[in-house]
Amino acid sequence: MTRLTEEARGVYVIAVTPFAEDGALDLQSIDKMVDFYLEAGATGLTALGMMGEAPKLTGAESLQVVKRILARLDGRIPMVVGVSAPGFAQMAELTRASMDLGAGGVMIAPPGSLKTDEQVVNYYRQAAEFIGNVPFVLQDFPLATGVHIPVSAIARIVEEVPTCVCLKHEDWPGLEKITALRAAGTLNRRISILCGNGGVFLPEEMDRGADGAMTGFCYPEMMRDIVHHCSKGEGDRARDLFNAYLPLARYEQQPGLGLAVRKYVLAKRGVIASAALRRPGAGLTQAAQQEVDMLLARQEQRLKELD
Amino acid sequence: MTRLTEEARGVYVIAVTPFAEDGALDLQSIDKMVDFYLEAGATGLTALGMMGEAPKLTGAESLQVVKRILARLDGRIPMVVGVSAPGFAQMAELTRASMDLGAGGVMIAPPGSLKTDEQVVNYYRQAAEFIGNVPFVLQDFPLATGVHIPVSAIARIVEEVPTCVCLKHEDWPGLEKITALRAAGTLNRRISILCGNGGVFLPEEMDRGADGAMTGFCYPEMMRDIVHHCSKGEGDRARDLFNAYLPLARYEQQPGLGLAVRKYVLAKRGVIASAALRRPGAGLTQAAQQEVDMLLARQEQRLKELD
Amino acid sequence: MTRLTEEARGVYVIAVTPFAEDGALDLQSIDKMVDFYLEAGATGLTALGMMGEAPKLTGAESLQVVKRILARLDGRIPMVVGVSAPGFAQMAELTRASMDLGAGGVMIAPPGSLKTDEQVVNYYRQAAEFIGNVPFVLQDFPLATGVHIPVSAIARIVEEVPTCVCLKHEDWPGLEKITALRAAGTLNRRISILCGNGGVFLPEEMDRGADGAMTGFCYPEMMRDIVHHCSKGEGDRARDLFNAYLPLARYEQQPGLGLAVRKYVLAKRGVIASAALRRPGAGLTQAAQQEVDMLLARQEQRLKELD
Amino acid sequence: MTRLTEEARGVYVIAVTPFAEDGALDLQSIDKMVDFYLEAGATGLTALGMMGEAPKLTGAESLQVVKRILARLDGRIPMVVGVSAPGFAQMAELTRASMDLGAGGVMIAPPGSLKTDEQVVNYYRQAAEFIGNVPFVLQDFPLATGVHIPVSAIARIVEEVPTCVCLKHEDWPGLEKITALRAAGTLNRRISILCGNGGVFLPEEMDRGADGAMTGFCYPEMMRDIVHHCSKGEGDRARDLFNAYLPLARYEQQPGLGLAVRKYVLAKRGVIASAALRRPGAGLTQAAQQEVDMLLARQEQRLKELD
Repeated sequence: MTRLTEEARGVYVIAVTPFAEDGALDLQSIDKMVDFYLEAGATGLTALGMMGEAPKLTGAESLQVVKRILARLDGRIPMVVGVSAPGFAQMAELTRASMDLGAGGVMIAPPGSLKTDEQVVNYYRQAAEFIGNVPFVLQDFPLATGVHIPVSAIARIVEEVPTCVCLKHEDWPGLEKITALRAAGTLNRRISILCGNGGVFLPEEMDRGADGAMTGFCYPEMMRDIVHHCSKGEGDRARDLFNAYLPLARYEQQPGLGLAVRKYVLAKRGVIASAALRRPGAGLTQAAQQEVDMLLARQEQRLKELD
Repeated sequence: MTRLTEEARGVYVIAVTPFAEDGALDLQSIDKMVDFYLEAGATGLTALGMMGEAPKLTGAESLQVVKRILARLDGRIPMVVGVSAPGFAQMAELTRASMDLGAGGVMIAPPGSLKTDEQVVNYYRQAAEFIGNVPFVLQDFPLATGVHIPVSAIARIVEEVPTCVCLKHEDWPGLEKITALRAAGTLNRRISILCGNGGVFLPEEMDRGADGAMTGFCYPEMMRDIVHHCSKGEGDRARDLFNAYLPLARYEQQPGLGLAVRKYVLAKRGVIASAALRRPGAGLTQAAQQEVDMLLARQEQRLKELD
Repeated sequence: MTRLTEEARGVYVIAVTPFAEDGALDLQSIDKMVDFYLEAGATGLTALGMMGEAPKLTGAESLQVVKRILARLDGRIPMVVGVSAPGFAQMAELTRASMDLGAGGVMIAPPGSLKTDEQVVNYYRQAAEFIGNVPFVLQDFPLATGVHIPVSAIARIVEEVPTCVCLKHEDWPGLEKITALRAAGTLNRRISILCGNGGVFLPEEMDRGADGAMTGFCYPEMMRDIVHHCSKGEGDRARDLFNAYLPLARYEQQPGLGLAVRKYVLAKRGVIASAALRRPGAGLTQAAQQEVDMLLARQEQRLKELD
Repeated sequence: MTRLTEEARGVYVIAVTPFAEDGALDLQSIDKMVDFYLEAGATGLTALGMMGEAPKLTGAESLQVVKRILARLDGRIPMVVGVSAPGFAQMAELTRASMDLGAGGVMIAPPGSLKTDEQVVNYYRQAAEFIGNVPFVLQDFPLATGVHIPVSAIARIVEEVPTCVCLKHEDWPGLEKITALRAAGTLNRRISILCGNGGVFLPEEMDRGADGAMTGFCYPEMMRDIVHHCSKGEGDRARDLFNAYLPLARYEQQPGLGLAVRKYVLAKRGVIASAALRRPGAGLTQAAQQEVDMLLARQEQRLKELD
């Protein structure tokens, strides 16, 4: 087992869940996808996230996915499992099973029913108690959850809940939040900050103090390169590359639609056998496919120019 | 098996889920509770609803509860199982298991992510397809779900989805909605309308055309009597009784807090062994207990006066 | 001028805004209404609240209403003016004009865009700065505003903003909130707590430490009597009366619809000339009118029995 | 007067409202800004929009702004005035005053309280009745308003409300919506579709059938050029330019923060005297200013390469 820690950095790719055209789990594509992510420079993998179609899986299928990924990873990098659930019993059950299988930690998003800072802090206090001694990622994604978590509430969670080791940062706007979290005295210990939102602010996020990305953009190599060049102080090179990918990243980041874009590209790249989303969940229209094709062609050309 | 149909009427009690003080399922109290509901005049039972702490149960526990209730009911009245879930796979799985055990139908609330009428209708179309030939209750509870379903959308669901046999009506305000649904030409077939909201509008709802109640007020005998007297045209008697229970019903209907009130009274009445809610979920403060005690004493006295 | 202070107690009636059938302001009814409220025992008046159809008035009309009420009150009791607005410039403008006319204070509800405790506290800090040295009521009504303000945030506002002298309490459930606010050490100074929500929890609210009511139930005499008897320790008498009014109060409290009920009853009682709401805003259907008529008849009878 | 019609196309720039450092209206900067927008190719101007800090103005100030812009425009291009308000009385008042001053039309966003398609259609029906024979823009911006308007509801508004002549399209994702609205048979008459969202999808939007942009990106010349090249079928050139501006457009589109970015750049370009936002509303931190400066430098360089 490779355990998730406060030292997490680099690129934790949010894995898609591959399905066959008929909606069945496509386990062979999982293997291929894991290989691809490793080759693309992933330093961690996150499964069953919002973009992993987790709610469309039965409990048994969820574990099948976790098991298959872990088997293929074979301990090379840590795996995080999304365990957000309407209740703590289900969350604890999936956490236990995943950790038993060898996961390195879990990720927890707040339910939309939380209304005040106090309630948010309490929620994470209780969740941590339910899952026991398991490192977890706090997912801060107001656009999707409807829950806004100010820096002061994050600071309280970090102080009171030692198993909180990482922030999946996808507040929007969120740059000042990173700066505030990294300012001396805000947190009583350093945790990892990995950024989401499809990577569309990654250069700025790195400059503000992020440790890397945790998102699923269909070109993980972009994230690897940005993190690499930013870490080395090669900001111009990072931005040149980033700008080449940005038109596609922007297109992939459309809420709801984005996953279909991501799977369309991954299938086109040969990473997964089919772009199919499990129902409900539609594919891309022909017009959208043409738009993506054009973005891919122009991106390839621009990357060549930069080579 | 006693199947839920468009003919459902009377009182479908929303069952609580009894827990021991330590949070374990209290299966013996389930038996006692079922007996109590039957004696109080229930014509149906609904388990794993929002007020049944369903999300706090693991999948296995949910089935344990369903099984135990069905065994005790022994086919005397139909049982409805709440199967609302973040995804259709989980919903279909729980539906299948419940129906195999002998449930009469299921209940489905819309997820908060639905934004337009079209999306609501689509959701129920898809849900019905996923669960197959199983009669279901459409739960219309905007205060809790955040989803507003206008009469025109309900009419489309009833027309397009033949397995929708009942509306759990708890829009607020909702009286004109019942009138509109019962007006000639609104629906292309008659479905059952059972009202929620703790029964605090039951006399008016019956007059507007409801078929009864589906809610869990801690005195189901109130609902039985109101439905009975309203059905017989004894509106004054119905209102006399209703008014005697209203101060408590109002108190029990406080969002969030209401379940603790309900369990406190049910425990006090000897129906369940403990008033405990599974965590997270607090009990009543001492001040609240005293308020409820006073409401109970005054209610008893007023009922005696009316005898 | 009668200034609003931390000593506010009794019944601050939320005034309706009377319109003629054609939607014009009915200034003569304002006079009659003010007389009625005074006779019914109002210790204060609040105009241009959510139930005063304030957003349907032009700026000039708003001031006309304020002026007319103040003229009729003639300094006998303080008047509070609702000044909630999308921006501080408008809020400050209406505040200044109202105070110049002789108002005693203003009321401010938080805009729905506030997401965190910090933002709520900041909002009131800024609002107070904009309106200057004017006492104000903090309106805490999450059901209508979508903003949840925990006790800790109220405590910070009270501490940091000395012009906050009163809480319009209508969180639901809200009884524990009153208890918490009245507990030693929660607030650094005592402010007035006046309760809303149509009065449907008034006896319990008084017992928990409220100073009275600030709401517009169409029988203000109910609120006067409850506050009176509760203050004198005559809880049983208070509850007898309360229970007689509760069926109507419950009916009037239906969101959106409630104002039409209130105006229907006030017109029926001869307080205002017409029950008309300014458009948009519909009146009661015939079915609803009959329901209210029956509630009124039964209420009258019950009150006689209690005499 | 230049009246807004269904033929609107090109770039309707959302104007900022310039303030001095002390928060006073800066009328001289308005003149300069209008000149700048005209030179940059604006075919229309929209004032008092969400990004125009409209709620921070008093009624009198709003009219001052409208008057000043109209005087400078001198009828060369149509001006649209944002008149969204909590109530129809205020909306009608501002509309009348603006049209009297020579505005070409108004823009109306739906209030967040609308919950169903029916309510949305009704709202626009009523608004149109209140403002009379004035052409208006329907603002479809769910991220900001919380109101989701499906194509079918837009079609009903267009059919029933003849004064609706333009859609400010900023649903996200929204490309399929344009395609659906432009499909034969969807609308019973053609209206103008101008796109918002800071222009970050403008090339795709033009290809889907939009008539131009209505947004306030700090480089209106970008929008002019994209619209121009897309209209001429020069998609590659359009995309080359678009990609050069995209890193900055993405940065400016951050909700809430975006206006500070926009004003910072406009001040830096000499268009307005000060980047100040009226309170509440903070400026950019130093870190953010450096990020914008770097984006500007890189953008300039890339545009040179493309020349």
